[in-house]
Amino acid sequence: MANFAVLGFGVVGSGVVELFYKNKKHIEEKAGTEMEVKKILDLRDFPDSPYRDKLTTNMDDILNDDSITVVAECMGGVEPAYTYVKACLERGKSVSSSNKELVAKKGAELLACAAAHNCNFFFEASVGGAIPIIRPLHKCLAANDIHEISGILNGTTNFILAKMISDNMSFDDALKLAQENGYAEKDPTADVEGFDACRKICILSSLVFGKHVYPESVYTKGITSLTLEDVELAKLLGGAVKLIASVKRLEDGRILPSVMPTVVPFHNMLSHVDDVFNAVMVNGDGIDKAMFYGRGAGKLPTASAVLGDVIDEIKHERTVFSQMWADAADQSFVAPIGERSSRMFVKISKAEPEKITQALSEFFRSQNIALKAKVQLAGMHNDGCIAFFTPAPLTMHQADQLAAALSADEIHVCAMLPVLD
Amino acid sequence: MANFAVLGFGVVGSGVVELFYKNKKHIEEKAGTEMEVKKILDLRDFPDSPYRDKLTTNMDDILNDDSITVVAECMGGVEPAYTYVKACLERGKSVSSSNKELVAKKGAELLACAAAHNCNFFFEASVGGAIPIIRPLHKCLAANDIHEISGILNGTTNFILAKMISDNMSFDDALKLAQENGYAEKDPTADVEGFDACRKICILSSLVFGKHVYPESVYTKGITSLTLEDVELAKLLGGAVKLIASVKRLEDGRILPSVMPTVVPFHNMLSHVDDVFNAVMVNGDGIDKAMFYGRGAGKLPTASAVLGDVIDEIKHERTVFSQMWADAADQSFVAPIGERSSRMFVKISKAEPEKITQALSEFFRSQNIALKAKVQLAGMHNDGCIAFFTPAPLTMHQADQLAAALSADEIHVCAMLPVLD
Repeated sequence: MANFAVLGFGVVGSGVVELFYKNKKHIEEKAGTEMEVKKILDLRDFPDSPYRDKLTTNMDDILNDDSITVVAECMGGVEPAYTYVKACLERGKSVSSSNKELVAKKGAELLACAAAHNCNFFFEASVGGAIPIIRPLHKCLAANDIHEISGILNGTTNFILAKMISDNMSFDDALKLAQENGYAEKDPTADVEGFDACRKICILSSLVFGKHVYPESVYTKGITSLTLEDVELAKLLGGAVKLIASVKRLEDGRILPSVMPTVVPFHNMLSHVDDVFNAVMVNGDGIDKAMFYGRGAGKLPTASAVLGDVIDEIKHERTVFSQMWADAADQSFVAPIGERSSRMFVKISKAEPEKITQALSEFFRSQNIALKAKVQLAGMHNDGCIAFFTPAPLTMHQADQLAAALSADEIHVCAMLPVLD
Repeated sequence: MANFAVLGFGVVGSGVVELFYKNKKHIEEKAGTEMEVKKILDLRDFPDSPYRDKLTTNMDDILNDDSITVVAECMGGVEPAYTYVKACLERGKSVSSSNKELVAKKGAELLACAAAHNCNFFFEASVGGAIPIIRPLHKCLAANDIHEISGILNGTTNFILAKMISDNMSFDDALKLAQENGYAEKDPTADVEGFDACRKICILSSLVFGKHVYPESVYTKGITSLTLEDVELAKLLGGAVKLIASVKRLEDGRILPSVMPTVVPFHNMLSHVDDVFNAVMVNGDGIDKAMFYGRGAGKLPTASAVLGDVIDEIKHERTVFSQMWADAADQSFVAPIGERSSRMFVKISKAEPEKITQALSEFFRSQNIALKAKVQLAGMHNDGCIAFFTPAPLTMHQADQLAAALSADEIHVCAMLPVLD
């Protein structure tokens, strides 16, 4: 018999309780023991809940109950989640957390705390919601040298972009629709400015490269300045604009994480991820590439991931499986965004094709970059802009220089986005 | 210090050794101990191999060496793999196998043998090559009631179909190209007739539903009778023809596994899986749906999955994690193909649209099926056939009746494929 507690009875926490009791028999078979939700922590009253007798407002009821060996933390935010999780781990209670902010800011410390107290700190739900990604990265792909990860890690922005791409909606209209559908919050800043995706790529980067990457170290650009024209021109050139959170290891061993709107060519599976779905593409030397796709948020999908961790923790109590990464006050292993290199999608004011080709050739010659491909220009009727992919990769630093060079030729750069190659 | 052995030094086995030594340091960190390949079993001579001192032709060298605690079986085929794997498990040596034929035919017995001897039998590589699917199904999705799985589980046929879809190649030409590229064997029967995909869906079905499903119980249809016209008409109607291996739980608890060419609508991610890639879509009550995508075969991708298992077995020696399923001499829990229900893609000889609509309406009325959607007909120039999706799901049994009814109206059914809804 194993008891677990749930911290936070909001959307995710109530989903954990609901899914657990729905599939209790099957879950107990998987865990190899009978299981029960013993306590649920929440400051609010739920007089009509069938689980009201399990509710408590006092964390000590959970901390001091030795029969509770596993705790599911579904509160969100750093405090009081951090204090509570740490207190649980210090008492040898394993924790399963869906809290990306907590893991992105305090992951290294909490992992060390779990290891010191011979218990587990799992957080499968913190990245990609229902999508199994943490455990597969850590276990199934353990033999690989993973050098790059790129993902669609925020469902709200993917919904907005998908609506812009397939229904020709403006950003504002698409955001409104997302809010009406409950996919975006009243204050959508954390989603549309990329902060949410940033936390998740921090977690994946820390896990794969072994050192804690802090959100402040990650260049983050949201989708608020994207126009419908940007999206349509990218489509004409053969790609979908997606908010891509990625991390790449450079040749010198430093890593380069970033969150940016990016043009994903249609031959890349990530370009087909629609609606509120998330997906993560992993590149390693053994697997080549693998992708994990599913619902990145929502009550039951997130609960599924939390409970998967809880089952594993109950099944293997006292064995430390936790992945580890080191805290890293010195973040100099994170390279600055100027070094990030890829082909670029460039949207410019309309100009003579010869003039553009001429300006590009001169620029690439000045940078000693050999051009093998011809530039394909895409334009639309009734629009003052045209766009192209650069025929060779540029660093973000070089891309700025290209913009300056074009400007000197009186070609105005309206937008510039990296291409996911 | 942990030693493991490799059975079979062919493509996969040599990949395991190569990837292990390439990433040795990193793999040892993951496993938490130093590791070494102690023996490699193969009847052939490899005088130029850097690993020739590890090669043996005598299985006893491995069985009787107590320092070898884990064995990677990469031989393929049932014998002698079965005898060797069983002997290893009986001596308490954990086994990681890439051998889908072995698992599909002897999985239940070998899992029981591993449990009886307190060791592990893993087979992540046996389905979907590099794609993490066995462990995620068993662990990360453990809280879900999984009711359906559908996948592209054979890279050879997916390559052929992708060439037919995007390059308008005939089946014969695409098969020839696959053979030239080394994606298809000289005798391509196991791939193109669906036998390989069948073994893999047996493994997934057994794992998810807890009873061994034998290949003989699974209705299996390959892609040899598909024409370029079938593929093109499906595309006009909004879908890609893929060889889909699937299993569904029926309302009465029986399951219905099958392997069939299937029209996958373009809004389904599986329709975008190109080239030799594999993907598995999983439907559960918590996650809704999740998809796993990657290379389904090949030297290093398969080696990555085998080594992931080896690392896990070395890290957690003596703890039985193995998923279990029961042997099932009585296969009556597997429903017959006639009960399988979905919309159908129907390709018929050209006829007056009114005549077709009339015949369809009469048929659906006779079956008491209400129609909500209108039938959309798709045809091509210079071709004697047109096609449509049935406006409502039909069982395979009803689909046969539809063909008979149309035939009575002198409309000849040239092809009929299920639609993945």
